[in-house]
Amino acid sequence: MTMTLNHLFDIILSRRESPPPGSYTARLFTAGEDEIVKKVGEEAVEVILAVKGQRDERVVAEVADLFYHTLVLLAARGLTLADVEAELERRHKPPP
Amino acid sequence: MTMTLNHLFDIILSRRESPPPGSYTARLFTAGEDEIVKKVGEEAVEVILAVKGQRDERVVAEVADLFYHTLVLLAARGLTLADVEAELERRHKPPP
Amino acid sequence: MTMTLNHLFDIILSRRESPPPGSYTARLFTAGEDEIVKKVGEEAVEVILAVKGQRDERVVAEVADLFYHTLVLLAARGLTLADVEAELERRHKPPP
Amino acid sequence: MTMTLNHLFDIILSRRESPPPGSYTARLFTAGEDEIVKKVGEEAVEVILAVKGQRDERVVAEVADLFYHTLVLLAARGLTLADVEAELERRHKPPP
Repeated sequence: MTMTLNHLFDIILSRRESPPPGSYTARLFTAGEDEIVKKVGEEAVEVILAVKGQRDERVVAEVADLFYHTLVLLAARGLTLADVEAELERRHKPPP
Repeated sequence: MTMTLNHLFDIILSRRESPPPGSYTARLFTAGEDEIVKKVGEEAVEVILAVKGQRDERVVAEVADLFYHTLVLLAARGLTLADVEAELERRHKPPP
Repeated sequence: MTMTLNHLFDIILSRRESPPPGSYTARLFTAGEDEIVKKVGEEAVEVILAVKGQRDERVVAEVADLFYHTLVLLAARGLTLADVEAELERRHKPPP
Repeated sequence: MTMTLNHLFDIILSRRESPPPGSYTARLFTAGEDEIVKKVGEEAVEVILAVKGQRDERVVAEVADLFYHTLVLLAARGLTLADVEAELERRHKPPP
């Protein structure tokens, strides 16, 4: 069984509500939007570097980092993954 | 009902297998890895710009773009969203 | 003889003062700060891609693009290359 | 008197030839191309964040960081600022 992004988003929200001691996610929320958005940019760079010269394991790990930090960004902004899914639905839904 | 990223990833795979005429996704696969990874970088920049000065609708739209292009990148590389979910599971699974 | 960045910055300023028809630089100033800063991000991505897989000529061309768009950004903000040089002087000047 | 980028590039080259103890520049050369190119990407993100919400001093400081790391990247690649200036000359020289 794997963890969907929806499940991960719920975990991120719970970290914000009741931050466990030492939680990296909770620290990101405290650091604030500029720090989180900087991480999104950095992880995108790391995805590029992984794709251009590293093994598949690195690509997967960096994409996981990018998705995770983007979900934290959504939560910090008061948005949800469901908002993004609704937008994707509008764009990509098959014709009836 | 909304579209999960897993559903979107299946659509992306089907665009690669049987590319409909005019499909943007199919065009990305033809353009190749460098073009796709460039789009991932550009969309990350657009997420940053949206967060720093635009409305929530723009943030949602740009995150949707970022996720979409990152999924295309995974597919172009022969990787899957399930690979990323397995990595997230390893990192974030709650203790038993 | 080569063109220093200082000379290029003067050209950029003159494009803003008296925009020639069809000038790309003038168009950037009209498009505004968000468009210019997006170009800076995109050119940084292209530098990364060039370094990671393309020939030296591409690296040089992409760094030229990155420098050019960053100078336009400074000008659009009312800042100068001299401001940046003064900052570099503060950081890197050799001990007396 | 301010420090031109040409002067800074000479300093960077000398740091590579005879690395002083504790030199950040020398450490970057040792870390290698991937680390340097990652810094270029990160500094581009910081330029964007500074432009979108911080004071002019921050913009100047982040552009200085971006230029510096890009010069280190050129040097690590065996290229020079003169190569970039020659490219800019080709593109921007006024008609005779």
